Amino acid sequence: MAQKPWLQGLGILFFGVFLYPKMTAAQQPTLNLMPIPASVQAGSGSLRVDSSFSVALSGHGEARLDRAVERFLRQLAHQTALPLLLKPGKNPKATLVIQTEHASKEIQEVGEDESYVLEVSATGAKLSAPTPLGTMHGLQTFLQLVEVSPDGFAAPSVTVQDRPRFPWRGLMIDSARHFIPLDVIRRNIDGMEAVKMNVFHWHLSENQGFRVESRKFPKLHELGSGGLFYTQDEIRDLIAYARDCGIRVVPEFDMPGHSTAWFVGHPELASGKGPYEIERKWGVFDPAMDPTNEKVYKLLDDLIGEMAKIFPDHFFHIGGDEVNGKEWDANPKIQAFMKTHGIKNNGELQAYFSGRVQKLVVKHGKVVVGWDEVLVPGVPKDIVIQSWRGQAALAHAAKQGYRGILSNGYYLDLGWPAARHYAIDPMSGDAANLTPEEKQRILGGESCMWAEYVNAENVDSRIWPRNAAIAERLWSPEEVRDPASMYARLDFIGARLDWLGLTHKTYYGKMLHRIAGTSSLVEFAALRTLADLVEPVKDYTREQTAPAEPTSASPMNRLVDAVPLESDAGRHFGELVNQYLAASCRDADAEARLRAQLTLWRDNDARLQPLARRSFLVKEVAANSQDLSALGVAGLAALDAIAKDQPASDTWKAQQLAVIEQVKKPKSQLLLIPAPAVQKLIEAAAAGGTCFTAKP
Amino acid sequence: MAQKPWLQGLGILFFGVFLYPKMTAAQQPTLNLMPIPASVQAGSGSLRVDSSFSVALSGHGEARLDRAVERFLRQLAHQTALPLLLKPGKNPKATLVIQTEHASKEIQEVGEDESYVLEVSATGAKLSAPTPLGTMHGLQTFLQLVEVSPDGFAAPSVTVQDRPRFPWRGLMIDSARHFIPLDVIRRNIDGMEAVKMNVFHWHLSENQGFRVESRKFPKLHELGSGGLFYTQDEIRDLIAYARDCGIRVVPEFDMPGHSTAWFVGHPELASGKGPYEIERKWGVFDPAMDPTNEKVYKLLDDLIGEMAKIFPDHFFHIGGDEVNGKEWDANPKIQAFMKTHGIKNNGELQAYFSGRVQKLVVKHGKVVVGWDEVLVPGVPKDIVIQSWRGQAALAHAAKQGYRGILSNGYYLDLGWPAARHYAIDPMSGDAANLTPEEKQRILGGESCMWAEYVNAENVDSRIWPRNAAIAERLWSPEEVRDPASMYARLDFIGARLDWLGLTHKTYYGKMLHRIAGTSSLVEFAALRTLADLVEPVKDYTREQTAPAEPTSASPMNRLVDAVPLESDAGRHFGELVNQYLAASCRDADAEARLRAQLTLWRDNDARLQPLARRSFLVKEVAANSQDLSALGVAGLAALDAIAKDQPASDTWKAQQLAVIEQVKKPKSQLLLIPAPAVQKLIEAAAAGGTCFTAKP
Repeated sequence: MAQKPWLQGLGILFFGVFLYPKMTAAQQPTLNLMPIPASVQAGSGSLRVDSSFSVALSGHGEARLDRAVERFLRQLAHQTALPLLLKPGKNPKATLVIQTEHASKEIQEVGEDESYVLEVSATGAKLSAPTPLGTMHGLQTFLQLVEVSPDGFAAPSVTVQDRPRFPWRGLMIDSARHFIPLDVIRRNIDGMEAVKMNVFHWHLSENQGFRVESRKFPKLHELGSGGLFYTQDEIRDLIAYARDCGIRVVPEFDMPGHSTAWFVGHPELASGKGPYEIERKWGVFDPAMDPTNEKVYKLLDDLIGEMAKIFPDHFFHIGGDEVNGKEWDANPKIQAFMKTHGIKNNGELQAYFSGRVQKLVVKHGKVVVGWDEVLVPGVPKDIVIQSWRGQAALAHAAKQGYRGILSNGYYLDLGWPAARHYAIDPMSGDAANLTPEEKQRILGGESCMWAEYVNAENVDSRIWPRNAAIAERLWSPEEVRDPASMYARLDFIGARLDWLGLTHKTYYGKMLHRIAGTSSLVEFAALRTLADLVEPVKDYTREQTAPAEPTSASPMNRLVDAVPLESDAGRHFGELVNQYLAASCRDADAEARLRAQLTLWRDNDARLQPLARRSFLVKEVAANSQDLSALGVAGLAALDAIAKDQPASDTWKAQQLAVIEQVKKPKSQLLLIPAPAVQKLIEAAAAGGTCFTAKP
Repeated sequence: MAQKPWLQGLGILFFGVFLYPKMTAAQQPTLNLMPIPASVQAGSGSLRVDSSFSVALSGHGEARLDRAVERFLRQLAHQTALPLLLKPGKNPKATLVIQTEHASKEIQEVGEDESYVLEVSATGAKLSAPTPLGTMHGLQTFLQLVEVSPDGFAAPSVTVQDRPRFPWRGLMIDSARHFIPLDVIRRNIDGMEAVKMNVFHWHLSENQGFRVESRKFPKLHELGSGGLFYTQDEIRDLIAYARDCGIRVVPEFDMPGHSTAWFVGHPELASGKGPYEIERKWGVFDPAMDPTNEKVYKLLDDLIGEMAKIFPDHFFHIGGDEVNGKEWDANPKIQAFMKTHGIKNNGELQAYFSGRVQKLVVKHGKVVVGWDEVLVPGVPKDIVIQSWRGQAALAHAAKQGYRGILSNGYYLDLGWPAARHYAIDPMSGDAANLTPEEKQRILGGESCMWAEYVNAENVDSRIWPRNAAIAERLWSPEEVRDPASMYARLDFIGARLDWLGLTHKTYYGKMLHRIAGTSSLVEFAALRTLADLVEPVKDYTREQTAPAEPTSASPMNRLVDAVPLESDAGRHFGELVNQYLAASCRDADAEARLRAQLTLWRDNDARLQPLARRSFLVKEVAANSQDLSALGVAGLAALDAIAKDQPASDTWKAQQLAVIEQVKKPKSQLLLIPAPAVQKLIEAAAAGGTCFTAKP
C-alpha cells in the first residue's frame, strides 16, 4: 500500500475544504460524497451531464474496465433517465476521460493501490488511477457528484484526490442462519461498490445450514441445508461479479463449533453421539467437531482443497468462535486423548485443532482468518484475527505481530444507531498507542450482518444505508467524524442505493401492508406513524424478550421485523426538542411543530384501534400504540406547563416521569424512540421559566 | 364455452350476495375479490391459514398444475411471510384439496371451460374445476380471500361459483415504440394471472422497432431494433411461462403500415425509395409495404412461417391500422398496378394486401386477427376484428358474421380514470341489439398499453392497478358496475399486485427523488403533495402540448412521466367535497378536513420554491405549484364565504371562477385534478345558506 507522493502533502493541504459544518435546512450540503474522500478541492462552475455524455478509456486496458464503465453508464442512465450510449470509447474528447496506469493483481490483494484522482471542470472530467481498483472507486465518486441542477443534470467542478485509510473494508453476510438468495447478495455487492467497500465476507456454514455445494462431500449440502445452498457455478459467478466491482470474496466455514449442520450428513465428525438435525433455534450449541479424530482432518483437507479452488482469494476464514466444550467434556475418548497429549483444557484442545486446520489451509495455498479465539500461543504470524472482542484485543494481537480487522462495534444486527457505529474507530483505545509498525497491522474492519432475524425480504434494510457510515469510517480520514454531516449524507446515499435495486426503502410499505391487511388511508397512516417511531430492542435482548422461542421457522411478519433499525422520525423529533430547548427564549416555530406532532401522536391510537381489532399483527402492538398516545399527552402537558412561565409542581413532574418510565419499557420487542425527548420537555417544564435554564 | 348447469340458476340466485353497497370507512368490504366472481355465497367462520397449510392435487394431473400450486404457495408464503411447504401433495386431508377433471387443450383455445368452484369452510377448502384453467383461476381467488385477521391469517368461509363472461380477456403491450425488457413482461403476465386475464397480445413491430429475432431475415432485428429485441429462446420461455398461467400469447406484426423498422434492413419491401432509418418520432408515417411487389409476399410467407412455429397460438395478428397511403400515391409502379387490376383506391389496395397476407397466415395454420381496417368485403369469416373504433364497428362486424374484440375505450395510455374504462361494456351501444347468435361473436376485449411514453421504469404504473378494472369488466357479470366498490377493491388489488414484483407502487418515490435531487423532508413532502394532485394531460394532447417534439430518445424523467395517470388524492378530495356539500346542514368534520387540505395546498408553493430553484425538473412545474396554492386560497375563501350564511357576491364569484379557469389550463402537460371540486365549493358559496341548496 504505497502512498502516492502527492497524497502525503495534499492530505493536510486540502483537508479543511470538505469538512461540512453542522448543516441546517437552509444550508444544504453541496457535495454529498460518502465516504468523504481524502481531499476535495472545490472549483467553480459545473460539468453538464446530458445525453451526449461519453466515456473514453486510455492507458492500461482490460475487459473488466470496459464492464466497469458500462455498469457506470447504466447506473448514470438510471439515475438521470438520460438515453446514454452505454459503451466506452477511445475519443480523447469524451466527456469523461479515464487513464489507468497498470493492471491490479490477478487475484486481488490486501493493500493494493486503490487511489484515484478525479478532476471535474466545466468542460470535461478526467479520472486517473494507478490501477483499475482506483478507477472503479473514482467512477463511484463521479456518480455521487452528478445531481439535478437548475439547468439539467450536472457534476460540480472539483478535484478529488482520494485513497482509503484502511486496506480491508468488509461486509460480512451470514447466509447460513437464514439463507440469503444470490440476487440479494449480488445487489449488496453493488451497494458495497457504491460505498467503496472491498471485502465480501461470506459466512457459509453454521449450526443452521451448510450452504455450499460440495461435490466431494455432497451430504454436507444435501442433508445440511434443507435444499437451500449455492451451487459451485453460482458461487463462481458471484465471485467474478465481485471482482468486477473490486471486491474480494472471503469464505468462512465456521469450525469446530457452529457446525451442527455438517453433522447431519457426517455425524462421524462430531464429538457427540448424534444423530444430528439441522438446528432451528438460535444461540450457542453443544455440537463440535472432534479434534482427536483423524477422519475430521482428512475430510477438512479434502473440503478445504475443494473450496480453495472455488474461492480464489488468498484468505480463508475458519471461524473458530464460541465453542462451549460440552461435547468434549462428555466424550471419554477425547478426555483420554487430552490426557495422553498433555492438553490441559478445552482452550488448548481448540488451539490444537486450529493449528491442524491452519496447516491444511496453508497446504492449499491460503492464509487463515479467524475470530479472536484462534489467536493462541504458537499460531503463525501471517494469520489475520477478526475481532468481535474489540480494539484492545486487536492491539494485543498487533503487538504480538498479528494482523487484525475490527468487527466489534460493527454488528449491524444489534440495531445500534448509525452514529454509534460511526464513532467506533479501529485505531482508538489501546490501538491508538501502538507503534506505527504495529498500527500497519490493523488492516481495517468489517460490518457483520448476522442472520437470526433477517431474510431476503428485510435484510437490505438491516444493512443499508447504515453500512455506509461504517464504510466511511474505514475509508475516510480519521478526522471525518461529524455525525450530523454523516446523517445528512446517509439520507442522500440511501436514496442513491435505491437505484441499485436494493430494497431497503421499498420493503417497508410492503411489510406494513401485510401487517395492516385491508385498511383505510387513515388507519394505514396511523400504523405508519407508530411504525416510524419505534425500533426493535437492541443488542441481544430480542431472544430474551421473545413471546415464544424464536426459530428459523418463525414467520418474520411482525412489526419488529418490518420497522427500520433506526427511526429517522424519532431522531428528527429529538433534534427538534433540542432546538426548542436550546433557544435562549421560546422558539415559537419549533413549539408549533412539536405541538403538531404531539397532537398527532395523542390522537393516533384512536385511529389505529379499528385495525388492531382486525389484524393480529396490529393487535400485537396495541400497547405500543397506547404508549405513543400517552407520550403525546405528556408532551403536550409539558409544553402547556412551559407556557405557564413557572416551574411545574413536583407532583406533576413525578406523575409525568412515571408515564415516561412506563413508556420506556419495551413492548412487543419494540422501543418507543421519542420517550427520552419528551422526558426532556417534562424536565424543562419542571425547571420552569420562559427562557430556559435547562439545556439539552 | 359450455355453461355448467349449476351456473345457469345460481347466477341469479346468489347475485345479490356480493354486490357491495357504497362503502364507508366504518363499513369495510369483507371480500376484496377482483374480478368479482359470477356468484359468491358467504358462509360463517373462516379457515385459518398458518404454516401447516397444505395443498393436495387430485383428478387430472399434469406438471403445469404442480407448478401452478407451487407458484400459488410461493405467493401465499410471500403474502403472509409464513414458512410453507412449497410442494403440492396427495393427502386428501390437505387444507386445500384440488380436483381437476380433465386436461385443457394442448394449445389453449378461445372459449375453453375456465370455470371453477371454490368452497372454503372453517375446516378446509375445496377447489374443483373441469380444466386446469379453472383450477388456476380458483387459486387466484383463494389468494385474494386470504387476509390478516384477529387471530392470524385466514380465508372466510365462502362458496364461489365462477366463470368468465367473455372468453377473450387481453392486455396488449407495445414493446416496439419503447422496448420493454422481458422481466417486465413476465411480471405483467403475473399481474394478468392475478386478475384472470387470458390473452397477452404482444405488439412486436412498429416504425420504431422490429423486436423479434428472425433467423431467416436477421437484418429485420439486427438493423431494425437498435439491438433491443427478444431472442427466439426468450420468446419461447415467455410463452411457456404464460401458458403456465393460463394465458395465450398472440403476436402482432403490424403491416403494411407502421413498418418503417422493417425497411431499414429490407428497403426493397417498401413502397418508397428509401433508404430508411428507425423512426424516432411518434405518429402516423408514410412508409408502407408495397402490395404490388411479389418479393413482399415471399418474405412474409417465410417470416410468418418462421414466427408461426415460435408462437403456438391459433391466432396471428397482422395489424393493418393507419396506412396513410402517401407512398402508394407517389409510386408510379403501384399506380400502374392499381390501374391494371382495377383497384380503385388505397382502401382497396390495402384490402388486396390483407387478402394476400391472410392467405399466408392460413397457409401456416393460423387465423388472422387485425385492427378494424382489415375488415373489407370478401375477407373470410373466421378472422377476428380488434376494434379501436368501438362497439358500433364490432356490432357491424358481428352482423356480417365476424368475431370481434373491443379495445376502443380500453387504451391505458390515454390516462382516463379507471371508472371510465370500467363503464365501457363490449355489449353496449349497437352491440346490445344483436341477436344472441351475433352476440356470441363478441369475444371480449383487450386493454392496450401503447408505448410512446412508457419504458421499463414506469410502464407498470400505466397498466396497474387500473387494468384490473378492465379485467373485471371482461370477467364479471354485466351487472357488476358500481365504481365506488371498484375503486375500493382496486386499492386492495393494487397492494396485492405489489407482492408480484410489479413496480407500479415503488417506482413513484424513485422517480420523485430523481426530480427532487437532494432535498429536505419538507421540500420533498411539498413535491409529493403537488405530484399527488396532478395527472398527465389526457387522450392525444401530450404530443400537441409538448415543449419540444418528443422522440424515443426523450428522457422520461419529468413529473408528467412520474405521476400516476389517476390521482387518488384528487379523487378523494372530490369525494370529500361531495360529502360536505351533500350534508343537509354543515358537516363540521368534513369542513375541518377540507380546511386542513386547502391550507396545506395554500402554503405548499412556498415550501417547494427552494427545490424549484435547484432542480430544473421541479422548476418546470413551478406554475402548477402556484396553481395549487391559488386553489388552496380560493377553496379557503369559499369555505369562509359559506360560513357567512349568505350568498357571496357575483363579483366575488366571478373573481374566484376566473382563478379556477386559469388553474384548469394544463401546464407542463399536467392537469390539476381538484380544480372542479374547488369550483363546486365556490358555486355553493355563491348560492349561499348554512344548509346547502346546491347539491353535488
